[in-house]
This record gives sequence, C-alpha cells and structure tokens, in this order.
Amino acid sequence: MKIFTKIAESRAKIRKLKDQKRSIGLVPTMGFLHEGHFSLIKQSVKENDFTVVTVFINPLQFGEGEDFELYPTDFKKDCELLEKVGADMVFHPSIKELYLENFLTKVSVKKITEKMCGQRRPGHFDGVCAVIIKLFNIFNPDNAYFGKKDYQQLQAIKKLVIDLNYDINIVGMPIIRERDGLAMSSRNAYLKDNERDSAICLYKSFNIVGKLLSQGYRNSEDIEKGVSFFIQSFENVKIDYIAIVDKETLEEIFCIDKSFLLALAVFIGKTRLIDNKIFEV
Amino acid sequence: MKIFTKIAESRAKIRKLKDQKRSIGLVPTMGFLHEGHFSLIKQSVKENDFTVVTVFINPLQFGEGEDFELYPTDFKKDCELLEKVGADMVFHPSIKELYLENFLTKVSVKKITEKMCGQRRPGHFDGVCAVIIKLFNIFNPDNAYFGKKDYQQLQAIKKLVIDLNYDINIVGMPIIRERDGLAMSSRNAYLKDNERDSAICLYKSFNIVGKLLSQGYRNSEDIEKGVSFFIQSFENVKIDYIAIVDKETLEEIFCIDKSFLLALAVFIGKTRLIDNKIFEV
Repeated sequence: MKIFTKIAESRAKIRKLKDQKRSIGLVPTMGFLHEGHFSLIKQSVKENDFTVVTVFINPLQFGEGEDFELYPTDFKKDCELLEKVGADMVFHPSIKELYLENFLTKVSVKKITEKMCGQRRPGHFDGVCAVIIKLFNIFNPDNAYFGKKDYQQLQAIKKLVIDLNYDINIVGMPIIRERDGLAMSSRNAYLKDNERDSAICLYKSFNIVGKLLSQGYRNSEDIEKGVSFFIQSFENVKIDYIAIVDKETLEEIFCIDKSFLLALAVFIGKTRLIDNKIFEV
Repeated sequence: MKIFTKIAESRAKIRKLKDQKRSIGLVPTMGFLHEGHFSLIKQSVKENDFTVVTVFINPLQFGEGEDFELYPTDFKKDCELLEKVGADMVFHPSIKELYLENFLTKVSVKKITEKMCGQRRPGHFDGVCAVIIKLFNIFNPDNAYFGKKDYQQLQAIKKLVIDLNYDINIVGMPIIRERDGLAMSSRNAYLKDNERDSAICLYKSFNIVGKLLSQGYRNSEDIEKGVSFFIQSFENVKIDYIAIVDKETLEEIFCIDKSFLLALAVFIGKTRLIDNKIFEV
C-alpha cells in the first residue's frame, strides 16, 4: 500500500492501472477510521482490482462553529489498519493541494439536500459535492463506496452522478453498529463516559417507531412525537431533527402509506450524532 | 462521420477509442454552424486523433424571454459541413436524453460569472456549466475547444476545470469575423438588412478605444463613455453593457494600468450581440 499526497502522481498511477484495464474502487473518508469505513473498503477490495482510500478532512463541508478544527485524526493508525484491510493506495493530500487559493466553484443538489442535515448545516452538502466531484475526476473510479449512516449524502451523490453523467457505480453500504446498536462514527470519540450511555437513544428510538407502527399509527407527526418524547427521556440530549421522509427523494411524508426513512440528528452534550433506518409498512 | 443521439452508444465508442490510446477533442456547439465553429473543429482535428462535435441547444442556459424557442437550426446542413471539415462524430441528443425529468444539480462558478453576461442573463452560466460538465463526463476529452467571442464562458469553464480537477486542456480560439469585422455568431441570422449595418458598431468601437488610449485616457469610465456615445450614434441599437475588466478574473478595472478586456453586449433591434477585445497598454 502506497501513500500519495499529490494529485499529479495519483493521476499517473491511475492512468497506468486504467491502461492495464484494472478496475478502480474509491472510498472517500475523513480518516480516524472505524469498522464502518472498513466495511466499505472490504467491499471495494472484493469488487475491484485496485482500491483507493482517500483520507482528507474537507474544510468545505464544515460550517462555522462546527468541529473542523477538532475533528479526530490518527493517520498513522489509519494507515496500519488500511494496510491490513487490503487498500492499495491512500490519498492524503494537504488542503492546499486540493483547493487552490481561489476556489470559486459551487455544486449543489437541490431538494435532496434542502432538509434534514442540509437545513441544519448550511453549505455542508455543497462542500461534500465539491470534494466528491474532485475525487471522481482525479481517480475516475468504476465504483465508489459510501455508508448509509450518511444517508442524505448518499442520495445527493447518487443524484449528482445521474445528473452529471458520471460513469461511476455508487455503492451504499449498511450502517455498522457497536454491540449496543450505536452507529459507528468517528465523532463517537467525542463522547464522554456519561454521554456514551445517552448516545444509544438514537438506535433505541427505532424500537419505539416499530411499536407505534405495529399499533397502527400512520401519522408521521404522532411517530415523531413518540420518538421525541423517548429521546428526551435521556440525559444531556438535544434533538436537532427527527424526519420521516421518502427514502429516495427525502421529501417529507405526512401520512405513512409506504416504506419510509426515519432520520435523526441528536446532540449528545456537544456531540452531534446522526442515524437512520428504513421502515417497511 | 457518424451521428450519435444516445449517451450509452457514445460512451461505448469513446471507451473503444480510449482503449486504442486515441486522443479525443471535444467541440461543444448549439449548431447552425459558421466559420467560428469551423475554426474550433479544424483545430481539434489537427490536435486530436478523434473529434467529437456536439450539437445541442441547451435549454438550461436560456433565461425566460430569451430566444430558446427561436434559436436557428439546420442540422442537415451542419452535418454536411462537419463532414467536410473533418469531424469524426456528431453528438446530437434530445433534451430528454441529456436531462432526465428531474434535474436537480446546479453548478456555479462564482465571481467570474457574476458581472457582464452573467448579470444580464441570470442562470445562463450555471446552465452552461451543467451541460459542459455532462459533456466532459460523457466524452472524457483530452482537449476541449471554445471560442473567445464567449470570453466570459471560456474563463468560467477554465476555472471549472481547475477547481474540479478535470484532466482536460481547454483551448480558447480567436474570434472569427466577417469581412467588415462583425464577429461570427449564429444569432447574426436574426439581423434584418438595416440592422446588419448597425451591427458593425461593436467591432468599430474597438477603434474608438484604441484612439482614446493613444490620446492618454486611462480612466475606464471615460473610455466606456466614449464607446457608449459612439455606439449610440448607430440606428436601432441599445447597449446592454460595456465592461472594462481584468482579462483573467473579469473584475472591473477603474484606472487602466495594464492590459484589459473590453467586453460589449448590444441589442441590435431585438438581437443581442456580444464582442470583446483585449487591449495592451
């Protein structure tokens, strides 16, 4: 496994591989890797001849007052683990290498990014789209892997690929969870011991939804209320949003008559966690 | 020369060419071709193994009340001429083929597109960027050719390519003019006989600028005034804008102390024409 920090040398490597007709899998990450990332990387290793993992904390996708400065890193450990899991190349550029002084291009996916995290984190998905297009254009992958924990991101990228005619297969991979159900996230590292207990409220609220559905509730407002009451019964929590939406368009659903996505963002202390689940009815 | 209307078959063809290591030149047009287009195509034929000319009137780059419905077409004649000039492939998709029902992605290049035509034609350059990215992603060209008559478009596309890390060389080609100096444009076909005489005001105003500069004028407002008086001495004209700007950033220049771009948009009757020239001082 080789570490690349420059675009030009990465392109040269990719060009050689393409000439040899080797398929390329791309796994974009911000590092501080966990089992969630590894599941993507393993899938890519299985499905492609060559797997590129990018480790880059993208400043464009952080808003003011968010945790860009604090975002956890351990590049040395990441590399050790990436080697084990079978990645072929790590791309770890500086901010300067990826964004020249005067970055002027803005890419937005309308509608899909307007609610939920997009509403709570203005500019976040524009930043995601910009960096993902850059990585697509540098690595020209056959397949690119994203976790379903960031469900809204996954839908935005899928739409971006269709709208802009990228010839890239976007693979969405299941959420990987801790034993007790907490969705794996680099941000879990922020949680203090007492907060860790409260963090389980996101996953546990899915049970509440299941119960309410089985009791015949079909009004999304009722279900959101049930989830809200449940989450607020935990210590140190503040709900950012609870959304019941169409699993493709992410448009709000009011009366539940088909499968839907429940998406949550909850502050546990100062740590903002997200989770989601698709429910069939 | 073969005509393609579908993205999938075009991609398949391009993939074959890439496998054979053949270089690809792309010339995006809206058809109704003239000598301006041919100069781009000839350059592409000279510099690439395979030249793709796209003929597509892109609805996204027309504003409300603009000439999308009226834009001149003669695809049969275009094809005859393209054959002669050496194009290898024409891509002529339907609107439906290029834009699925629900196009949600918006691509903007800030600053560069905010003044001049961008200000007068809101959304125009976003539409240009979207279609150009789509064509880049479908054809994956080595070189892409654009005329300098659309100077602001050229600068926006150059910035897009840098910002989004496209591995594409953007070639800007000189303005091709009629004998009397009128810049070639498909929209010249709109001009009635009496309007054709007035249309020369854009090109002729460059002489005025040259004179004012040689007389020592360095205040851009003075020069714009001179151009404005001159243009208004013609019949049936209405100035849309006169801009003196930096030739790279397109930022306004107030006191002229270096080379600059003079860019003009003038309505001749109902026909909006543009032209530009770089002046050295």
